[in-house]
Amino acid sequence: MTALITPIILVGGSGKRLWPLSRESMPKQFVPLLGERSTFQQTLLRVGDKSLFGRPVIATNENYRFMAEQQARELGIEIDLLIEPSRRDSGPAIGAAAAYAKSLGTEAVLALASDHLIIGEEEFRAGCRDGLAAVRQGGIVTFGIPPTEPKTDYGYIRLGSEKIGDVRKVAAFVEKPDAQTALRYISEGLLWNSGNFLFSPALLLAEMARFEPAMATAVEEAVAKARRDGATVFLNADAFAQAPAKSIDYAVMERTDKCWVVPARFSWSDLGTWGAMLDVGTADSAGNVTEGPVELDQVRNSYVRSDGPLTAVIGVENLVVVAMHDAVLVGHHDDLPRLKDVVQRMSDRNHKAATEYARMHRSWGSAEDIGRGLHFRVRRLTMKAGERLVLQSHRRRDKHWFVVNGVGEVLLDGKTRTLAVNDSILIPRNGIHSLRNPGSEMLEFIEIQTGEHLDEEDFVRHEDSLQRPQAAV
Amino acid sequence: MTALITPIILVGGSGKRLWPLSRESMPKQFVPLLGERSTFQQTLLRVGDKSLFGRPVIATNENYRFMAEQQARELGIEIDLLIEPSRRDSGPAIGAAAAYAKSLGTEAVLALASDHLIIGEEEFRAGCRDGLAAVRQGGIVTFGIPPTEPKTDYGYIRLGSEKIGDVRKVAAFVEKPDAQTALRYISEGLLWNSGNFLFSPALLLAEMARFEPAMATAVEEAVAKARRDGATVFLNADAFAQAPAKSIDYAVMERTDKCWVVPARFSWSDLGTWGAMLDVGTADSAGNVTEGPVELDQVRNSYVRSDGPLTAVIGVENLVVVAMHDAVLVGHHDDLPRLKDVVQRMSDRNHKAATEYARMHRSWGSAEDIGRGLHFRVRRLTMKAGERLVLQSHRRRDKHWFVVNGVGEVLLDGKTRTLAVNDSILIPRNGIHSLRNPGSEMLEFIEIQTGEHLDEEDFVRHEDSLQRPQAAV
Repeated sequence: MTALITPIILVGGSGKRLWPLSRESMPKQFVPLLGERSTFQQTLLRVGDKSLFGRPVIATNENYRFMAEQQARELGIEIDLLIEPSRRDSGPAIGAAAAYAKSLGTEAVLALASDHLIIGEEEFRAGCRDGLAAVRQGGIVTFGIPPTEPKTDYGYIRLGSEKIGDVRKVAAFVEKPDAQTALRYISEGLLWNSGNFLFSPALLLAEMARFEPAMATAVEEAVAKARRDGATVFLNADAFAQAPAKSIDYAVMERTDKCWVVPARFSWSDLGTWGAMLDVGTADSAGNVTEGPVELDQVRNSYVRSDGPLTAVIGVENLVVVAMHDAVLVGHHDDLPRLKDVVQRMSDRNHKAATEYARMHRSWGSAEDIGRGLHFRVRRLTMKAGERLVLQSHRRRDKHWFVVNGVGEVLLDGKTRTLAVNDSILIPRNGIHSLRNPGSEMLEFIEIQTGEHLDEEDFVRHEDSLQRPQAAV
Repeated sequence: MTALITPIILVGGSGKRLWPLSRESMPKQFVPLLGERSTFQQTLLRVGDKSLFGRPVIATNENYRFMAEQQARELGIEIDLLIEPSRRDSGPAIGAAAAYAKSLGTEAVLALASDHLIIGEEEFRAGCRDGLAAVRQGGIVTFGIPPTEPKTDYGYIRLGSEKIGDVRKVAAFVEKPDAQTALRYISEGLLWNSGNFLFSPALLLAEMARFEPAMATAVEEAVAKARRDGATVFLNADAFAQAPAKSIDYAVMERTDKCWVVPARFSWSDLGTWGAMLDVGTADSAGNVTEGPVELDQVRNSYVRSDGPLTAVIGVENLVVVAMHDAVLVGHHDDLPRLKDVVQRMSDRNHKAATEYARMHRSWGSAEDIGRGLHFRVRRLTMKAGERLVLQSHRRRDKHWFVVNGVGEVLLDGKTRTLAVNDSILIPRNGIHSLRNPGSEMLEFIEIQTGEHLDEEDFVRHEDSLQRPQAAV
């Protein structure tokens, strides 16, 4: 192996704190929060240096694998997928990643969050190299961030006196402090705990076996009994379910005496809240950060973002305003910790936009709701070159497809028809159909569903000759 | 004539102060601001008592006539339309209405704003009857509203001592005061000037001839030379253009000694600003008025309205939040007088949503933009029973129609085809086509336009056998 470090990117989270841009069906790591790339894609690009990093492994679950695959493909980056069959917190997730990396014979693993912002790619790589030296001397390495303000929503790291180059022994991990304690921590030189780790998989598993033997056994067995399908590894569900749900900090980091910390020279944010977006954005002279078609009038210290609607904001300060076609947030900075509960309440009241995105990303492309009437629904769909839909039918709805870009090949009740721009086809209820994009460009089409009952459950899957999981249209 | 009063409803205004719900292409009088009816419709219903009111006349311009027609038809109310060929302020508008009413032989005219809220229909009619008594004794009558707070954006009326029943002689009209003066006016018993008037058309024109002879001559000539088309009267453009642009207050009311005032016993608001919506709405215990899918968390004294998007508002007070699919407003109460300028700025920057509505009302139905792509555009259209589109063609775009409700009869290059639900037709560029709804229910269809250039100007009108103005699709 030429690469020294296998990056394992952890993709989970429900993203309620950045609602409405981030939602359960489309969590923040996949959303272009800053610039054109999602933080997941930025993370992939960050570990692109082949002299230092190997092929990235994405540790995620069934819900997010298609989005991860698609966003990696958009960058032309090949990945392995490590699919977690259940949510067991970060301890088992990182443990399984370590066990998988051990099975690859990897010297070191970099466990990276997929939803953090890091500015300073070169400093980041330098930190990894420094950390690697400590790993080689038996350390489990974390990245510590020099605080820029007395944050109360981060854990802190107290430095010990031992050094390996610039890497320092961890004296203690300390819990999220109150404001006054945070100020004291800053004056005492404590660092923020960024939650990204570099370690030898064998050592991490050994320490896990020491403190959480059931967890270590479970994750090693989940990897040993995993099912492989190409570059996708499905962890064994029964074994993984035996792992106690516990964070890696509680399970290992705060208990081992082998922790070292790289003081980061890069800028970092976990983009955990809308407030963070104001911190990391480029503010105007009144302290505002804006994005999209936004008009401000006597506004101060506010984050105003539109992903579509023309948005006018007048005479306010310390606000976050996020406008999308199907959802809007207006909140005072100080009160945004309650956003999570508010989203939960809206979800409890069955407001679809609380958890779902109008535009859904699928393995084969995307589908976006653009209109609904009493007995009809209009969607805008894209399908990537070479992709296809599973053979399917519906009991209670007709579908009409009209091509606006590219070429589509429709299979309907055994007959194949090719549709170019301006061609359309009606798929009657119970018609067994599929769709393929045989061209080299994106197929784009408008779908109009009609029927008395239009619900996603009305879907019958027929034999699939490719024998691989495919999503429904 | 059995009816005593001809109501003339004045429909103009650009509606910037209630953006985004009200826009230049869809001003506030046509928007359901409160409840399901627009204030224009509420005004029509208010003068529905046939023992008191005659057939209403709508004084408006070409831009708004189709919306006025449609909204009257929705209520099953027949109207006359008096079309102003140019905007000359309220003096010529009311003068022309008076001249038109005189030509009908009407005893009294009630000139009513179309965008005011009045609560208390019975008290309103009682006021009209009181006013009519004063009109019969040679008075020009205005409606005065007992102030509920020291408003600085209304004119006030000082009462004289003469009385006809409850109707009082006007001692003076006074201009919009500052806050302290407004307080004094309230203590002195002055009334707000609501800008609605009741008068004998002959007397109003006589007084206008006294103070503004050019205006009186112009409006009488504009009516004398008007072109009639069924119930629509087009004022003569050349004559009307000679009228000095001046408000009716400056032209007549503040100069005549014949003004009387009915102290209103109904509730009234001109709904001039978003602040007014908070005044007239039903507030919760925290002083909030909400409408639509809205979730509040520790919000006070705010007006929050969504016409679609799921809207969460957290930890603010004294705000107005109005969310629509294509436009959002967030503003502090105190700063909303600047909204007009902000809308103008957005309009200057060519933001379409500053002035246009995604959903446009036409004589034959409505058209709503629901999606746009690089070379396509998706619209959702409705067409009323019996309506048709003008015969037309396009040079640079193809259109595809798919019916989701009702029945449509398409005429394409001389051939007629009937489309029911799930039927579609492609109309190629240069195809001469029309569409009719031959059924008794609403026709609803999805239109997909394709082409390199998609603009509304690409429209060729062909011979129109009905010889009447029709709007383009």
